[in-house]
Amino acid sequence: MPQSTRLRILLVGASGVLGRAVDAALSERHDLIRAGSKSGEVRIDIADPASILQGLNEAGPVDAVCCTAGKVNFPPLASVEPQTLASSVYGLGLANKLMGQVNLALAARRSLRDGGSITLISGILSEAPIPGGSSAAMVNAALEGFVRTAACELPRGLRLNLVSPTVFTESMADYGPFFPGFEPVPVAKAALAYCRSVEGIQTGQVYRVGF
Amino acid sequence: MPQSTRLRILLVGASGVLGRAVDAALSERHDLIRAGSKSGEVRIDIADPASILQGLNEAGPVDAVCCTAGKVNFPPLASVEPQTLASSVYGLGLANKLMGQVNLALAARRSLRDGGSITLISGILSEAPIPGGSSAAMVNAALEGFVRTAACELPRGLRLNLVSPTVFTESMADYGPFFPGFEPVPVAKAALAYCRSVEGIQTGQVYRVGF
Repeated sequence: MPQSTRLRILLVGASGVLGRAVDAALSERHDLIRAGSKSGEVRIDIADPASILQGLNEAGPVDAVCCTAGKVNFPPLASVEPQTLASSVYGLGLANKLMGQVNLALAARRSLRDGGSITLISGILSEAPIPGGSSAAMVNAALEGFVRTAACELPRGLRLNLVSPTVFTESMADYGPFFPGFEPVPVAKAALAYCRSVEGIQTGQVYRVGF
Repeated sequence: MPQSTRLRILLVGASGVLGRAVDAALSERHDLIRAGSKSGEVRIDIADPASILQGLNEAGPVDAVCCTAGKVNFPPLASVEPQTLASSVYGLGLANKLMGQVNLALAARRSLRDGGSITLISGILSEAPIPGGSSAAMVNAALEGFVRTAACELPRGLRLNLVSPTVFTESMADYGPFFPGFEPVPVAKAALAYCRSVEGIQTGQVYRVGF
């Protein structure tokens, strides 16, 4: 049997539906530092590189960084006009869910102990079209591409994976109408994918959950 | 046999290796308007939304818009630090190859006749890691996600597809060392994928070429 080690894990987005499920799944066996933009032992706003660096500094050395945070817009395509990156309706997703998580992964390189892991969040919309989903599709797919390649260039045995779930049973009251015909999964199932990434040995993986 | 119609096609990036091959493949049967940032009958810099709108206006009504242009950086991951979207080394790829083409597609909605098509360019790096490829991976994958979803939301039977080729035989002298073990394909093979998109009936497709 492999030896079980107690790990020090920074969880970014700890107060959300997914964050709480990941917390529940990992905190029995490991020591968690909970972070969020508005709550948590450490404050991290992933959209702000300075906030990421400061939060990681406060957290200290860790064995894993898990992110369950990321904002994106859902504009009907008919309402979207050509705009520069900064002013585009696509800017939020690109600056927050995409580059926020990319920056978290880049910054985490210095906080992670040898062999440590980074686990980011994507979602089924990278593959499955829904109305207004073009920004989420772009951002989620971009994260898949980034993780696959960046994982191969990380130093010191650091690992980088992505969790890509379908809609959660617990979120159906809020998001259900946007996902017609999608079969939801309990959020605990997505939390298992974080365990697999953190406690496993793979890198550059996209762990699809429920599709 | 289906009827063969002579189409009016705007080709953006006409002077490049791929652009010239697409030109050769389509211009026998169709009428091309050639565009580029520094040459061509129409000038379009895809990084500038105003330039896109002006170029499309000059081109007039078209049956197809084909893009073979898009810039991206190739930074070794070890050299990349967390940065805001605007100042990040990832900014070029996001503003140029990704949002430049997304904006071209959005703007083309008003220039295209009913049932017209938009064909954008991605590449094998969305799936295949190479050193320094994290930006290209992110951008190419993002284009796949965008095209799959946005294609479903276009009006008037407009179609949107993506061509994703491996490295070209004609580019091996320049790019070969960055693609160790990759089997190149003649650029004419990628040009065929543009024909398939423009003259075919599919939408939301990623036409992989050579992998």
